[in-house]
Amino acid sequence: MTSLMDTSKAGSGRVVISVDAMGGDHGPWTVVAGIARSARKNPELDFILHGPEPELTRLVARRRALRGRCTIRHAEGVVAMTDKPSQVMRHGRDTSMWSALESVREGEATVAVSCGNTGALMALSMIRLRKLPGVNRPAIAILWPSRNKQGFNVMLDVGADIRADAQDLLQYALMGASYARNGLALPCPRIGLLNVGTEEHKGRAELKEAHDLIEASARIGQYSFVGFVEGGDIPGDRCDVIVTDGFTGNVALKTGEGTASLIGDFLRQAFAFSPLSRFASLLAYTSLQRLKKRIDPRRVNGGVFLGLNGTVVKSHGSADATGVSAAVKLAYELARTGFGDRLAARVASAAELAQDAPAARAVQNDG
Amino acid sequence: MTSLMDTSKAGSGRVVISVDAMGGDHGPWTVVAGIARSARKNPELDFILHGPEPELTRLVARRRALRGRCTIRHAEGVVAMTDKPSQVMRHGRDTSMWSALESVREGEATVAVSCGNTGALMALSMIRLRKLPGVNRPAIAILWPSRNKQGFNVMLDVGADIRADAQDLLQYALMGASYARNGLALPCPRIGLLNVGTEEHKGRAELKEAHDLIEASARIGQYSFVGFVEGGDIPGDRCDVIVTDGFTGNVALKTGEGTASLIGDFLRQAFAFSPLSRFASLLAYTSLQRLKKRIDPRRVNGGVFLGLNGTVVKSHGSADATGVSAAVKLAYELARTGFGDRLAARVASAAELAQDAPAARAVQNDG
Repeated sequence: MTSLMDTSKAGSGRVVISVDAMGGDHGPWTVVAGIARSARKNPELDFILHGPEPELTRLVARRRALRGRCTIRHAEGVVAMTDKPSQVMRHGRDTSMWSALESVREGEATVAVSCGNTGALMALSMIRLRKLPGVNRPAIAILWPSRNKQGFNVMLDVGADIRADAQDLLQYALMGASYARNGLALPCPRIGLLNVGTEEHKGRAELKEAHDLIEASARIGQYSFVGFVEGGDIPGDRCDVIVTDGFTGNVALKTGEGTASLIGDFLRQAFAFSPLSRFASLLAYTSLQRLKKRIDPRRVNGGVFLGLNGTVVKSHGSADATGVSAAVKLAYELARTGFGDRLAARVASAAELAQDAPAARAVQNDG
Repeated sequence: MTSLMDTSKAGSGRVVISVDAMGGDHGPWTVVAGIARSARKNPELDFILHGPEPELTRLVARRRALRGRCTIRHAEGVVAMTDKPSQVMRHGRDTSMWSALESVREGEATVAVSCGNTGALMALSMIRLRKLPGVNRPAIAILWPSRNKQGFNVMLDVGADIRADAQDLLQYALMGASYARNGLALPCPRIGLLNVGTEEHKGRAELKEAHDLIEASARIGQYSFVGFVEGGDIPGDRCDVIVTDGFTGNVALKTGEGTASLIGDFLRQAFAFSPLSRFASLLAYTSLQRLKKRIDPRRVNGGVFLGLNGTVVKSHGSADATGVSAAVKLAYELARTGFGDRLAARVASAAELAQDAPAARAVQNDG
């Protein structure tokens, strides 16, 4: 281990993020460029960076912003995008991903960030960080551009697990509310349960059961429940948090991304059509950049793993430096607000209250 | 019944479409305007129009294109968007929707078109037209703007039923292939099965079973099977037909529509931002219109109910005259190519072959 971090700065409001330098499509150069960008913006941010030491030392030394703020932890192995989660769980001890989670497990860092293989990252997170008491299935939550005031909705689960029963969906509602409160600064988030219609008689049996459970826990969870919502409400303003199973959420996420990308291509083609349209696109440049910025997937880069002892942010594998920096920013926000502890307290008191039900008790914490 | 149709023209390659004039958000004026537009474009097209006779007679009389080509069938009742399907099934005999399906049931028209309540239309179609032999669950198929040569992919089911087992998904593959062959003129469509990853070990158990069934029937169904696809492939070019259950398909459809609509709004806001951007939007007008046309939902208006004795096209409830005309055009294409009979033959021979399996037999029809 090479410590490039000035230890005299420890304590005193500093936030340490554990970063997996490997496993992304563009390699460690991009990750180091991303964290350097974040370091410039947030002076109280420090890093523990995991990967092959000689290469990382070289890359970090070139970044002035990282001087004295980045500890390198050597890890020889890299989890490839094609590796099966089960194999990584058995043979992945020497990987940078494993090492990055270890820093959170040991309490050296509050949040881990990785651009690597999602399935492997979730599997390792489950065995190394373990599930919070009261949580059956952890979930991955993402931010989705929307018509809401805050500009984003939270959706979960987008692919931690392909199944979810009514109890799991209730846990997702509690965790999603907590995330929206801390990540989007919404005191009382509006929760919607994804279905194929808004009428209460529609949909699968487990959704009707989940509807009633989530409705009954609104006071405990400090959210308001708007009932069933539809796919069109994911980018809409009927609610702030969309609760669904990981299969449906994953399909919705990828459909939305694919649709946005298709429209972007059509827009480029429309403006490349003729000399006049190319001239128009020059004049429209600022307007188009403004649009691009609003729907740029790099700005909302980072799926958050919820329901574990520790927070993990999964960045897109294809993230560039801007994308990595957005994921680090999200990790920083969650670490700074003490999100992990608040979520744990929230889930624990909900589980406790569910056991004590119907005795009504006041919930004190605001996680 | 008032016959405004010139009966001497019957036979001789004419195509009759049965149209429910009521139940859409914009009333019968819009429906009549839409079919008049279709009538001008397709001289061999005739209509049977269902709804309150006095009003329809007045509306039709004003349209020169419909002169001698539109029979009005009186129906007093209207199915509202809020009516429950079960109620419509019991008490809907006097409605224009019921009457429109009756024309297909009686063989007067080949295809029915309605802008009304989807759930009620599917429920009535099931009891009045009945399922094709060998089909357990009918499906709703839609066209989705894509990167494909033909500009569209077929996706089914988008909401006829919230459940689908492996056998149902196989039927959807066969019906979707038939629709792509007749509706998009693709001799050997590529079928993809929607999942959360493309690896064969991923996803729910019924999807793995469906994967093998669809793969094994590729020769019989005259399609090629590309295996599992993801949400991002719905607007992509990896396949021509996306097979999924009605719950997932409905969420994906509405998520895609919602995302496209959000981006459209952002685009308008970006161009309205400043005097310069408003000036740029004037110059970019043609380019933006070109984009709008490619993603205009009215151009692909029409979900097709597959697996019934007769074809039903469901238009968007909010369709304007352009949208109604697009739905009628789709109905006309399907009627003209004898799609219904071909689909029935295809499904029947697949069912028969499944019974005879593993004896290999050649399939002659090309439906």
